[in-house]
Amino acid sequence: MAYRPKDTQERILHRLKIAKGHLEKVMKMIEDDTYCIDVLQQLQAVENQLKGTGNVLLENHLKGCVADAISKGKKDEAITEIMTVFQKQK
Amino acid sequence: MAYRPKDTQERILHRLKIAKGHLEKVMKMIEDDTYCIDVLQQLQAVENQLKGTGNVLLENHLKGCVADAISKGKKDEAITEIMTVFQKQK
Amino acid sequence: MAYRPKDTQERILHRLKIAKGHLEKVMKMIEDDTYCIDVLQQLQAVENQLKGTGNVLLENHLKGCVADAISKGKKDEAITEIMTVFQKQK
Amino acid sequence: MAYRPKDTQERILHRLKIAKGHLEKVMKMIEDDTYCIDVLQQLQAVENQLKGTGNVLLENHLKGCVADAISKGKKDEAITEIMTVFQKQK
Repeated sequence: MAYRPKDTQERILHRLKIAKGHLEKVMKMIEDDTYCIDVLQQLQAVENQLKGTGNVLLENHLKGCVADAISKGKKDEAITEIMTVFQKQK
Repeated sequence: MAYRPKDTQERILHRLKIAKGHLEKVMKMIEDDTYCIDVLQQLQAVENQLKGTGNVLLENHLKGCVADAISKGKKDEAITEIMTVFQKQK
Repeated sequence: MAYRPKDTQERILHRLKIAKGHLEKVMKMIEDDTYCIDVLQQLQAVENQLKGTGNVLLENHLKGCVADAISKGKKDEAITEIMTVFQKQK
Repeated sequence: MAYRPKDTQERILHRLKIAKGHLEKVMKMIEDDTYCIDVLQQLQAVENQLKGTGNVLLENHLKGCVADAISKGKKDEAITEIMTVFQKQK
C-alpha cells in the first residue's frame, strides 16, 4: 500500500488524464495522416506530461515511504528499491 | 500530409493502443493506492512504449518525407525541422 | 560538505576517469575525421558512463545526506533540493 | 571518412573542450568533498553539453552523409544505421 495524501492522488490522476487526452490526440493524428513532425511534437507533449507525473510520484514516495522506511531503520532496502527504478530510466 | 504506408500506420496505432492500455493501468493503480515503486515501473513501461513508437515514426519520416525533400532540393528545410524535434527531446 | 565514504569517492573518481578517457577519444575521432555514426556511438559511451556515475552519487546522497536530514527533521528541505535536480534532468 | 566542414569540426571540438573542462571540475569537486547536489548539477552541465554536441554531429551527419547516401540510392542502409543510434539512446 502507498502513502498518498488525497490531494496528491488527485493531482497525479489529473496529470494522467491530461496525458491520456494527449495520447488519444496522437492516435487521431495517425489516423488522419497528420504530418510526422506534428505527430512527433504531440508525442513529446505526452512524454513530458508523464515525466512530470513521475516526478510528483517520486517526490511523494521520498516524503512518505522512503522517509518512513528510514525512520524505521529500513534505509538500505528503501534506497536499493528506488535506485532500481533510476537505473532503468532512459 | 504524411507519407505513411498502411502497415506502418497500423504498426504505430497498435503500439499507441498498447501504451494507452498501460497508461490506463497506471491510473487504476493510483486509484487502488498501489505501492509507488510498482506505479513508477508501470509508468516506465508506458514511456518505453512511447519512445519506441516515436522511433517508428521517425524512421518512417526519414525514409519518406526527408528522403523526398532531399531529392527535391529541400534538404535544409527538412533537416532544420527534424533537428527542432531532437533539440526539445529530453 | 558531503558524506562520501572513501571507497565511494574512489569509485566515483574511477568512473569519471573512464568517462574522461572516452571523451578524449571522441575528440581524437573528430580530429581524425572519423565517420559520424562511430563518433555518435562513442559519445553515447561517455553519456552512459556519466549517467552511471550520477546514479552512484545519487545513491550515496540518499543514504548519507538525505537519510541524515530526515532523521534531523529536515525532510522537506532535503527532498525539495533533490527534486530540483530531477526536474532539470533530461 | 566523414564529411565535416572545417567550421563544424571546430565547433564540435570547442564544445567537447567545454564538456571536458566541466568534467574536470566534477572530478575536482569529488576530491574536495563538495556537497552531492552541487556535484550532480555540475554533472548535468556536462551531460547537457554532450547532448548539444551530439545534436551538432547528428545535424551534420544528416546534411552530409545521409543526404549523400540518399542521392546515391543507399537510403535504407543510411537510415537503418542512424536508427541504431537512436534506439540505443537513453
